[in-house]
Amino acid sequence: MTEISRRGLLLVMSSPSGAGKTTLSRRLLAADAGITMSVSVTTRQPRPGEVNGKDYHFITHEEFGRLRDRDDLLEYAEVFGNFYGTPKRPVMEALQAGRDVLFDIDWQGTQQLAQAMEGDLVRIFILPPTAEELRERLIRRAQDSSSTVAKRMAKAADEISHWPEYDYVIVNEDINAAGAQIDAILTAERLKRHRRVGLTQFVRDLTKGL
Amino acid sequence: MTEISRRGLLLVMSSPSGAGKTTLSRRLLAADAGITMSVSVTTRQPRPGEVNGKDYHFITHEEFGRLRDRDDLLEYAEVFGNFYGTPKRPVMEALQAGRDVLFDIDWQGTQQLAQAMEGDLVRIFILPPTAEELRERLIRRAQDSSSTVAKRMAKAADEISHWPEYDYVIVNEDINAAGAQIDAILTAERLKRHRRVGLTQFVRDLTKGL
Repeated sequence: MTEISRRGLLLVMSSPSGAGKTTLSRRLLAADAGITMSVSVTTRQPRPGEVNGKDYHFITHEEFGRLRDRDDLLEYAEVFGNFYGTPKRPVMEALQAGRDVLFDIDWQGTQQLAQAMEGDLVRIFILPPTAEELRERLIRRAQDSSSTVAKRMAKAADEISHWPEYDYVIVNEDINAAGAQIDAILTAERLKRHRRVGLTQFVRDLTKGL
Repeated sequence: MTEISRRGLLLVMSSPSGAGKTTLSRRLLAADAGITMSVSVTTRQPRPGEVNGKDYHFITHEEFGRLRDRDDLLEYAEVFGNFYGTPKRPVMEALQAGRDVLFDIDWQGTQQLAQAMEGDLVRIFILPPTAEELRERLIRRAQDSSSTVAKRMAKAADEISHWPEYDYVIVNEDINAAGAQIDAILTAERLKRHRRVGLTQFVRDLTKGL
């Protein structure tokens, strides 16, 4: 097949907790060799089983401050006193090499990423089919206390309110249908003219003989 | 499945003659019930077998002039003294009803359509894989004279030079692969947030219970 070099893209999937994002991300990463997960830096302690360089790059507060001050982070956030951020360099290298990067970030991270990388960004928002479905999943996850459920519901409503900032919206009613929709979006976005940086040369060669 | 009403879209496929556009259009129209071909008006005489209202709306020069003067055409062109144009009304009705419309127009028609309907337009440019392939197909079609072949090649080069004005570029090396790529583009574009006009209501219902 004709190979036309292209610039990679940055895929953000955001959703309220419980809408199936994690399952859809895993499915995509397993099926598509062209996309890899962005590994964030964080100042929090590793949890049991977490692997440095795979789940996160675990760094000190000083290292984090240096990255941020040098503008080496595409987006970052503080959550309960811990810092999280996306290092710029691996993302830029992936884009140049025609590899795609998947991000697991919320609307705040997405806003920051859009500010820096608008033309490379593909934003998908995943919605649950019904409120009942979402509530049940949230209750199932928060087995501890009813205040946690209330907090999670408020957080879900807050996250959902940002759907208009995304390029695509998918309703995850059936995981296979939603997965196929994500695949189609990725296929289409890879065919976007402005990403196919090799086209200029390809067309030059093509029209030479006409 | 959850039905979210959406605005239709306008799909333009352009290509030099001989790149497989006609085959790909027919394939799409046969497989996808959500898209129909735009029927142009023309002042030229019907050819044997052409059906009024299906292949074209055959109209007089006076009728054409009236449509044009009332701004009832989305794009129009004159070719060898005959006028061709796209009537606005059926397109607007399709968009409102969530139906998609396919156009068989060249880069000049596409430019006019983009001026009027930018946000609704999805432009795909189809390229042949090699110059040799295109030349052979042009020769096969123009069995009459070598001057026709030269003219067709010049026309092909002219058409190809407008690829940067399109949203997506597909290289038609294998008709099934190219068809699948068009399907993916259509699936993705239908999931674009700004077309899914029913989302506001859907999210309102969804978050009411949270």
